[in-house]
Amino acid sequence: MTGKTYVYSFAAKETQDKALLGGKGANLAIMTGMGLPVPPGFTITTEACNAYLAQGEQFPAGLEGQIKASLVELEKTTGKTFGDVANPLLVSVRSGAAISMPGMMDTILNLGLNDQTVVGLQEATGDARFAIDCYRRFIQMYGDVVIGIEHYEFENILEALKQKEGVKFDHELSVAGLTQLVAEYKQLVHNQTGRAFPQDPFEQLLMAVKAVFSSWNNQRAIVYRKVHQIPDDLGTAVNVQAMVFGNMGDDCGTGVAFTRNPSTGKKEIYGEYLINAQGEDVVAGIRTPEPISTLAEAMPEVHQELVRICELLERHYRDMQDLEFTVEKGRLYILQTRAGKRTAAAAIRIAVEMVQEGLLTKEEALLKVDPDQLDQLLHRRIDPDAAVDVIATGLPASPGAASGKIVFTADEAEALGQQGQAVLLVRTETTPDDIHGMIVAQGILTARGGMTSHAAVVARGMGTPCVSGCEAIKIDYEKEQFTVNGRLFRKGDIVSIDGSTGRVIAGEIKMIEPELSNEFNTLLTWADEVAGLGVRANADNPADAQKARDFGAKGIGLVRTEHTFMAADRLPHAQRMILAENREERAAALEQLQVMQEDDFYGILKVMAGYPVCIRLLDPPLHEFLPQAEQLMLDITTLKLTGGDQEELAEKEALLAKVRSLSEFNPMLGHRGCRLGVTFPEIYQTQARAIFKAMARLVKEGHQVKAEIEIPLVSSIKELALLKQEVVKVAEQVQAETNVQLDYTVGTMIELPRACLIADQIAQESGFFTFGTNDLTQTTFGFSRDDAEGKFLPHYLEAGILTDNPFAVIDREGVGELMRMAVNKARSVKPEISIGICGEHGGNPNSIEFCYEIGLDYVSCSPYRVPIARLAAAQATIRKKA
Amino acid sequence: MTGKTYVYSFAAKETQDKALLGGKGANLAIMTGMGLPVPPGFTITTEACNAYLAQGEQFPAGLEGQIKASLVELEKTTGKTFGDVANPLLVSVRSGAAISMPGMMDTILNLGLNDQTVVGLQEATGDARFAIDCYRRFIQMYGDVVIGIEHYEFENILEALKQKEGVKFDHELSVAGLTQLVAEYKQLVHNQTGRAFPQDPFEQLLMAVKAVFSSWNNQRAIVYRKVHQIPDDLGTAVNVQAMVFGNMGDDCGTGVAFTRNPSTGKKEIYGEYLINAQGEDVVAGIRTPEPISTLAEAMPEVHQELVRICELLERHYRDMQDLEFTVEKGRLYILQTRAGKRTAAAAIRIAVEMVQEGLLTKEEALLKVDPDQLDQLLHRRIDPDAAVDVIATGLPASPGAASGKIVFTADEAEALGQQGQAVLLVRTETTPDDIHGMIVAQGILTARGGMTSHAAVVARGMGTPCVSGCEAIKIDYEKEQFTVNGRLFRKGDIVSIDGSTGRVIAGEIKMIEPELSNEFNTLLTWADEVAGLGVRANADNPADAQKARDFGAKGIGLVRTEHTFMAADRLPHAQRMILAENREERAAALEQLQVMQEDDFYGILKVMAGYPVCIRLLDPPLHEFLPQAEQLMLDITTLKLTGGDQEELAEKEALLAKVRSLSEFNPMLGHRGCRLGVTFPEIYQTQARAIFKAMARLVKEGHQVKAEIEIPLVSSIKELALLKQEVVKVAEQVQAETNVQLDYTVGTMIELPRACLIADQIAQESGFFTFGTNDLTQTTFGFSRDDAEGKFLPHYLEAGILTDNPFAVIDREGVGELMRMAVNKARSVKPEISIGICGEHGGNPNSIEFCYEIGLDYVSCSPYRVPIARLAAAQATIRKKA
Repeated sequence: MTGKTYVYSFAAKETQDKALLGGKGANLAIMTGMGLPVPPGFTITTEACNAYLAQGEQFPAGLEGQIKASLVELEKTTGKTFGDVANPLLVSVRSGAAISMPGMMDTILNLGLNDQTVVGLQEATGDARFAIDCYRRFIQMYGDVVIGIEHYEFENILEALKQKEGVKFDHELSVAGLTQLVAEYKQLVHNQTGRAFPQDPFEQLLMAVKAVFSSWNNQRAIVYRKVHQIPDDLGTAVNVQAMVFGNMGDDCGTGVAFTRNPSTGKKEIYGEYLINAQGEDVVAGIRTPEPISTLAEAMPEVHQELVRICELLERHYRDMQDLEFTVEKGRLYILQTRAGKRTAAAAIRIAVEMVQEGLLTKEEALLKVDPDQLDQLLHRRIDPDAAVDVIATGLPASPGAASGKIVFTADEAEALGQQGQAVLLVRTETTPDDIHGMIVAQGILTARGGMTSHAAVVARGMGTPCVSGCEAIKIDYEKEQFTVNGRLFRKGDIVSIDGSTGRVIAGEIKMIEPELSNEFNTLLTWADEVAGLGVRANADNPADAQKARDFGAKGIGLVRTEHTFMAADRLPHAQRMILAENREERAAALEQLQVMQEDDFYGILKVMAGYPVCIRLLDPPLHEFLPQAEQLMLDITTLKLTGGDQEELAEKEALLAKVRSLSEFNPMLGHRGCRLGVTFPEIYQTQARAIFKAMARLVKEGHQVKAEIEIPLVSSIKELALLKQEVVKVAEQVQAETNVQLDYTVGTMIELPRACLIADQIAQESGFFTFGTNDLTQTTFGFSRDDAEGKFLPHYLEAGILTDNPFAVIDREGVGELMRMAVNKARSVKPEISIGICGEHGGNPNSIEFCYEIGLDYVSCSPYRVPIARLAAAQATIRKKA
Repeated sequence: MTGKTYVYSFAAKETQDKALLGGKGANLAIMTGMGLPVPPGFTITTEACNAYLAQGEQFPAGLEGQIKASLVELEKTTGKTFGDVANPLLVSVRSGAAISMPGMMDTILNLGLNDQTVVGLQEATGDARFAIDCYRRFIQMYGDVVIGIEHYEFENILEALKQKEGVKFDHELSVAGLTQLVAEYKQLVHNQTGRAFPQDPFEQLLMAVKAVFSSWNNQRAIVYRKVHQIPDDLGTAVNVQAMVFGNMGDDCGTGVAFTRNPSTGKKEIYGEYLINAQGEDVVAGIRTPEPISTLAEAMPEVHQELVRICELLERHYRDMQDLEFTVEKGRLYILQTRAGKRTAAAAIRIAVEMVQEGLLTKEEALLKVDPDQLDQLLHRRIDPDAAVDVIATGLPASPGAASGKIVFTADEAEALGQQGQAVLLVRTETTPDDIHGMIVAQGILTARGGMTSHAAVVARGMGTPCVSGCEAIKIDYEKEQFTVNGRLFRKGDIVSIDGSTGRVIAGEIKMIEPELSNEFNTLLTWADEVAGLGVRANADNPADAQKARDFGAKGIGLVRTEHTFMAADRLPHAQRMILAENREERAAALEQLQVMQEDDFYGILKVMAGYPVCIRLLDPPLHEFLPQAEQLMLDITTLKLTGGDQEELAEKEALLAKVRSLSEFNPMLGHRGCRLGVTFPEIYQTQARAIFKAMARLVKEGHQVKAEIEIPLVSSIKELALLKQEVVKVAEQVQAETNVQLDYTVGTMIELPRACLIADQIAQESGFFTFGTNDLTQTTFGFSRDDAEGKFLPHYLEAGILTDNPFAVIDREGVGELMRMAVNKARSVKPEISIGICGEHGGNPNSIEFCYEIGLDYVSCSPYRVPIARLAAAQATIRKKA
């Protein structure tokens, strides 16, 4: 025997090391150590597993002896004996790696059963059916996972028996039938292996342990580890535990309990149980479990003990626990404990209350809530008190709830949407042709496609609720209707979807607008106290800015100014500006726009008084302001062929010529951003004047306003220097005219690879940086987002070529590397320069963590994601400190 | 007096420092030192200039005294005296900075003339007209550049006199008239300055020196220095030299000589001279100069002396010289020498012959030829022996010569071009609307726009000859004609242009196809011996590959495979593949294509046997293979409105639906490159099979072929890994089928910023890299080349926001930095990996130098630029070693 210890009793005090014992084994040891009633047993370590695999699937020296010794001890503790007919020891064998992992052999129950001990089990439980059913399940599972006989071979035999007995469910089989089944299963094993089903419990055990070890290297587990970057040498532990039985009479039972309400977070024991039952009875669905609140009456002592244990476990783990228990002859056993899953609302309440109870520090509490989960609370959602008529459930593809009239084509969606009607676009699946309809729809429902289908990816990008892959829905485009489970819905009928859960609901439903609960606000206040990264919001109008401020944004990171040219009342002036034949006409159009824009900027700056507001000067190419060439061509052809109005024809032809001269092959890389500012200086001058005049008004009214004027799409230092000079000139004019000193800086958006590479030069001319990670991702990958998300990106995600959509999660290797480079270069010449991010990544927790790591000053995201960003910023800070 | 020496006699031996004496002064000192007959004189240093400017335009202490002393010495040497009526010393005053620079005060001749000495000059030359004309020119130039009287004031007086005498040219004025002119000029000076024209020669000299110094800081000079990044503190020197006269009789003369023929490079003294004349007589155009070959007869001793001096100067400067000489009374004087300008052909011949003569080492010779200049020899050009009827001259906007029928619209160009006719597109200026016509035109001629106009930039990009800004041409679009200097040209008339010189020529002209002379080949052989960087060519067909091989390419760096799908006989199959409704249809179409493509690849690989051929798998998006949506829409609308063929309508509607589903917002960033390979694996499989089958055939025929299979547009490592695996699988199949071992590698084009950032990962999967700097420039800058060159890039270049077009010259700060990063990362994991460049930059000498610096293995360029690249590669290597 070597000196190495490969087996630890749960009761051994030497180690509770998760790496050595696995998660499950460590928890069993911990609970045993706490004196909790855990059925005794032992853990075979991950080291044993690694040694076994390293030696070509051979037990290392000493292991078999240690298992034997532990078994003898277990027999002593339980007073039962392996293979003893009168009082048989039965055990469960469970795998348990340090990290929960699918694909591995999981659980074998009732190991130790054989032709003799099954009789002992029957006598102990007084339930012949139960005992023989346990045995046949044991043979089936063991035959499958340990011996390696295909699962269907057992199923075939079972099916034949059910047909013979004329029953539908397994539990309807007779005891005689089950007894025959055991005989046939054993025959199957004999036929396939050339030897009888092992009757020696110790042999059963050794083979089961080996099977668990070997499953560490099965194909599915290897792939999973590769994908999730889990080291191959962690290995798995094996837990061998004495069986206890909840079905030995009315003083027995089994159940699950949460230490707090996983739905609301309320401090109460929550769960359900069955008297005189084993876990499998719940699965079989014969009886309805009781709520745990009734346990106090049914089994007062057990209940009291459970309350005590819940208390102890929470104190130990400092987290809400989800535990499994069994009551055997009035005695409570805890079989397993783990952190309980919970809703976002519950997570927040539990975290906050545990701080108040002194269980957690604020920083620990902040780490207990998953920011991504908060999204649930920050979208419009279905009133939980509303009665819902769920007609089907698909995939929760894009969160939020929506109601609308059913339409089946993007064109109809567009037509009704433009009339101001709420529509729900229902398609088998969507394609890039449907974009115009998807933009106006309140929600999107597809019958096919997964979480990375076109509909899902595009909807998430647009923030539109979406349920995808709802296969129960059968669409008939011809008849303009769909059927679902025999019900018929026609075009125009109202349907609701819940993109957070995948539910599809008949009719209109009461919705709840998102707002922050008291606990949520408390948590976010703590978050702001520790966060080393500020949070701003992107907002283009005063209403959004107000929402952002309500949600705790400390400034606006991006005001897009497109709408100040594109809003319905502006567009004619913007078009006049573009089509102007001479400087005077253009100046007149811009004059009009400037007056209107001054009010736009006044509104936003006023709402955000006291905080900085970063306003990006015009970014999109001018052709976006003109009608589409295709439509004009059609009109012209029609006018020509039908001999229509000649004046109209001439006008349209002139307009088409202009549209053509402005049209671009790749508008994303075209004549836009500061390139417009360079070639049409009047545009930026007009915007700057509108901003500065609005500021002067506000200052005179007693507000404290600070504007950051942002030049977009800079790729060379001279662009910025030139345009900055012009903005400053306008500011000086307005200051002179109004006699008001304005608080403003001029800076740039870093959104091109070249800007990152020369960030040191740019920093010298720039009052601030914000990363425009949407465009930076497009150019770094060479992905047009408009095209990629509709075409190849879903395929890339499904095939695992990319693990995340780089437009949702910052690509750290590529885009992130450029960002890091830019920050370092900029700070090397101007250490105090303010650097933020305003791409959509600013609201993504993973990306926020990265932004903190590379030293940004703030992130900016959509108003509804501000709370998520505040929490994520705090978590990033706490983790970095740790 | 301070100890500082500000004035050096040409004969002083202390210094020949160009920085101190300026280029001209240094050459005069060198020649004097060599004992050549240089008229004596002295140089006032650049230090004096800087001191003068630093002290607020005051002579530094001691300078005036040193000038005086030098003058006294000069009087002694020449035996003449400043202001002496009988034997007056006259001098020239010339500026001379270290770097030749426009904008500065240049030359004042005959300084020392006054009302007395003019008589002495008349007596010395025996030419009253000459003497008085010198005086009036001296007053005019001095009045203008030293005193600061506007030039036109003198011209007005001159014009009035010419009218009075009824003559047209200056030289027709009578002696009496010129005498009167002198009087009126002096009156003008008196009126404007309040004092008489200075009669004291020493005062004249001091004022002239100050004027030269001050001109260092005139606006034009400052701007020039800024643009060319010349330091402001170089300063200019001033050269004061005794005048000699070539017009004192038939034993006098003046001329210019090149030490070798600047047009052909032949070793012979080349130039022209006039007996009994001053330089200005040549300008006046009264007499035709004699070729220098006749000097041996006319002045045998002078000729012999000149030959000797040319020999000496070449030996000293080790370069062909361009010198000015004057013969005064049988005595030869050398006034100036400098490196002579020469044609590309001459440059090559001179460099090669100077090596053979032992004057230069091979490496020195390689540095004497400007690679950019070679472009002249590598385009189709006008036969120099052809009689040309030059009707106008514009800017040499894009090199090469072309003849064609005049057309005035892009549509006409396209229509005739598609009929196979050669057309010349003539426009006032071009816009992006004209692209379709520019593509098919043989040449482009515009009446407006500079070297960076739309026409110029686009034409250079396409390699189409272009003359821009030819303002003499007056276009009348209505009448479809243009007039030029009174001559009329109509649509359809044939005109030729020479884009290398800007000439516009009536009619068709004999052209010469480019080929390499013996000397050129010799030079390139030397280049290959030293170059640390290989040269390949980009070629898509066997003819281009052959041209490349003839020009010395050592492999193909890029075979684009688009045409193997797009050629007229392929397109139907390609469309069938795209429109296929099922896998069988697609497979059938691809089968057809594969057979045809095998021959394509066979051809290129055979031509390049022995060298590697890098074949890029399909890159463009599929919609490029289908008709335009707009045209289809028009057809459909027309069919509908006119009640046309319903079957055709249905077909077109189906096609339009497919075109729409493939259409993209930003095709450059869309579903193309390896993204096609990932989503449609059959396409790359087909191409790989065609390549490998062609290789197997060639190997069986005894050829040695090596293919590099290139996966384009890779942005993540998994894309490459996946596609490489598929290519290798096909190779293994073909090897098994044909029983031939194939020599191939699989690699990738690095053309996205992200690929550069993860180049270490990519290198591990990649057999080679080539930089696709066209796309890398597009994504790094965020510039769509198609749009930028037509829209804002010309403006950016004119405004100096960018100094070079980044699609022509590698942007070292941005794109280059990414390349350097990629090379370093790749070599850190795979030191031996082959890395090349195949963007258009591969043929640009500046970019080639950069490629060598960052350690590339080869550049690849168009076949016609291979010789340029070979020389540039050698120069980069030599310079780096130096």
